[in-house]
Amino acid sequence: RINADRLWDAIHEMAEIGPGVAGGNNRQTLTDEDGEGRHLFKRWCEEAGMSVAVDEMGTMFARREGTDPDALPVYVGSHLDTQPTGGRYDGVLGVLGGLEIVRSLNDLGIKTKHPIIVTNWTNEEGTRYAPAMLASGVFAGVHELDWAYDRKDAAGKRFGDELERIGWKGEEPVGQRKMKAFFELHIEQGPILEDEGIDIGVVTHGQGLKWLQVTITGKESHTGSTPMPKRRNAGLGMARVTELVHEVAMDYQPNAVGAIGHVEVYPNSRNIIPGRTVFTIDIRSPNKETLDTMDARIREGIAAICEAMDISHEVEQVGHFDPVTFDEDCVKAVRNAAERLGYTHRNIVSGAGHDACWINRVAPTAMVMCPCVDGLSHNEAEEISKEWAQAGADVLFHAVVETAEI
Amino acid sequence: RINADRLWDAIHEMAEIGPGVAGGNNRQTLTDEDGEGRHLFKRWCEEAGMSVAVDEMGTMFARREGTDPDALPVYVGSHLDTQPTGGRYDGVLGVLGGLEIVRSLNDLGIKTKHPIIVTNWTNEEGTRYAPAMLASGVFAGVHELDWAYDRKDAAGKRFGDELERIGWKGEEPVGQRKMKAFFELHIEQGPILEDEGIDIGVVTHGQGLKWLQVTITGKESHTGSTPMPKRRNAGLGMARVTELVHEVAMDYQPNAVGAIGHVEVYPNSRNIIPGRTVFTIDIRSPNKETLDTMDARIREGIAAICEAMDISHEVEQVGHFDPVTFDEDCVKAVRNAAERLGYTHRNIVSGAGHDACWINRVAPTAMVMCPCVDGLSHNEAEEISKEWAQAGADVLFHAVVETAEI
Ligand SMILES: NC(=O)NCCC(=O)O
Ligand SMILES: NC(=O)NCCC(=O)O
Repeated sequence: RINADRLWDAIHEMAEIGPGVAGGNNRQTLTDEDGEGRHLFKRWCEEAGMSVAVDEMGTMFARREGTDPDALPVYVGSHLDTQPTGGRYDGVLGVLGGLEIVRSLNDLGIKTKHPIIVTNWTNEEGTRYAPAMLASGVFAGVHELDWAYDRKDAAGKRFGDELERIGWKGEEPVGQRKMKAFFELHIEQGPILEDEGIDIGVVTHGQGLKWLQVTITGKESHTGSTPMPKRRNAGLGMARVTELVHEVAMDYQPNAVGAIGHVEVYPNSRNIIPGRTVFTIDIRSPNKETLDTMDARIREGIAAICEAMDISHEVEQVGHFDPVTFDEDCVKAVRNAAERLGYTHRNIVSGAGHDACWINRVAPTAMVMCPCVDGLSHNEAEEISKEWAQAGADVLFHAVVETAEI
Repeated sequence: RINADRLWDAIHEMAEIGPGVAGGNNRQTLTDEDGEGRHLFKRWCEEAGMSVAVDEMGTMFARREGTDPDALPVYVGSHLDTQPTGGRYDGVLGVLGGLEIVRSLNDLGIKTKHPIIVTNWTNEEGTRYAPAMLASGVFAGVHELDWAYDRKDAAGKRFGDELERIGWKGEEPVGQRKMKAFFELHIEQGPILEDEGIDIGVVTHGQGLKWLQVTITGKESHTGSTPMPKRRNAGLGMARVTELVHEVAMDYQPNAVGAIGHVEVYPNSRNIIPGRTVFTIDIRSPNKETLDTMDARIREGIAAICEAMDISHEVEQVGHFDPVTFDEDCVKAVRNAAERLGYTHRNIVSGAGHDACWINRVAPTAMVMCPCVDGLSHNEAEEISKEWAQAGADVLFHAVVETAEI
């Protein structure tokens, strides 16, 4: 078993970097705080005897040597970046859980045949730069490196420039590493495990996602003196699309979800009818046909809404992944580990996207989940118990070590 | 008649201060650009032989002496501040129209019995600091000076501090001036005059207004992994209120309007269900009962929407004025002037709020309106013709001079 106190302390020491306003974290990707968190992680890895490499996307790879120089490494990890109002565990548990495996192996004096490489993927959250899971996506060949560099944040700053600015643009070409397997531990971010009182989620599938960025253009005009029939209100159009997305998601739930989290209104003045709104629709389903149907219904609905209001619109897909089926053997390794350790477990579908979803395209991959209080995540109040962290990291430990072979 | 070329040049010289991005202006109240515009106006007034006083709200009073030292002054003016994406004429026409009257009187060597005072009221627009017409409201005794000083902009900066920072906090106590009358020339900001091909709107009434700032609190959570029934989506709540405001306004139009122009979403991340939204409802009607009924229906509707969604809400009134009936004699002076000059005219109700609406409570007041292209205002593309400006300023000239007595 891993050392839960040490893991817990590491998580909370990391949380001191980029603290939020309500107990959580604001350590968004490629901010100074992201850079500081990376330095701390690097120091810890080196203290544990690992060497740290960084690729051109800023992804960090901390290597513990294996006994067989030719054996493919087993990778383990997640991400250290957070939402603007994020929790302490989302991503961090998976990276520091990987570090804790190495620390525990060091304590026990155990050598594995295959090297173990603990990974911190850049920009998993996707808030500052869409799409989410950007670096793992480039690694898996889904995105071009230059395309990723050209992503812009809301202030117009390029991803490539900001990566360079914080000093974490490495030299290593992206995606050339071969993996025996990749394992990611993550909090569930949903309520199922806690509701059923189960220790471990054996993640067999991941939901698919689409992010549709919509721009609606109406006409700015005076809220007081513009007659109702003459209005071309881009804010009212956005409101109707918000309701539409909710209705479509409700039609397919529990096998789908949908919402709008990101909104910009121009010029955002109390007495100006909005002339333009930009917002991102997030729809998901574990079923590809359902996701495609939702996408089509929403696009048709937006067109109908805007035509009726004499406003124009554009829809741009700024994020997308198909539903994922994880590797059978890796999933089995997770299930066996839970079984062996005596933890209760059940199969689960990941509601969120994870770096593992992309890596699954280029290497055998699986995920371990542990519960989180009230299913709450992407909220500073995100919470887990030390026991849940222990169970998750123990299962990760056994699955990784079994795969890396003693 | 006034000198239309000179008026036109002045308007466009003023528009060079705080230019917008699309031909209009961004010279919001208490910005450096507002300060710069004030200096230009002051210089022009002094060159025309006037002395300029400034009160504790930063309102500017440029005085042309009358022949009778005891006669009450006739006031004329409007505002030089603009929307963030405002036009060149909204407010500016009224202030520089007042200046043009004095310049024309100088040209003609005419002295009036009553002094004429050209006024620039501070913060008419209400975008940076709610409510609109703030300084004229303090002047009319509707708001306390300290309350006005405590208004905060979106960045948390106090009105009083910003007024001091730009160097335009005067010493003169607010509201002690007595007026024989106040006249304000303004573009219509609506489509009626242009549609009907009429030169002059004789403003008999002004619509009443309420600004209701609503805060909806739901729960931030993950867009992917939070089951639909568990969501408490403050963004969806806001969308439903947006539709509600529209429906209520449609029920009473053409005697009412309603919209939401100002919106904030927290934390505004693509994959976080909004936990909190703050937005301002703008409803107006020339009929007080209608306005009150709309207010009540909207408050009830918000409560019902939020209760059904298990989200909480607060409603704060951040702006309000009752419908206005302008002074009979002043209105007659405007109508007579249009008649005498041979301009076509009709009675009109102002759809927007104006400083004249507050001053009407403490002095005989009336307004002159001229058409604007497509009824468009609060848009950088706001446009008028030089002929319309001429007609409006000519009528203002005659109404003011008749009241100030030669
Ligand atoms: N795990 C997680 O929150 N990832 C961010 C990408 C997503 O929105 O699913
Ligand atoms: N005239 C004008 O646009 N005033 C601003 C206050 C309002 O919204 O009516």
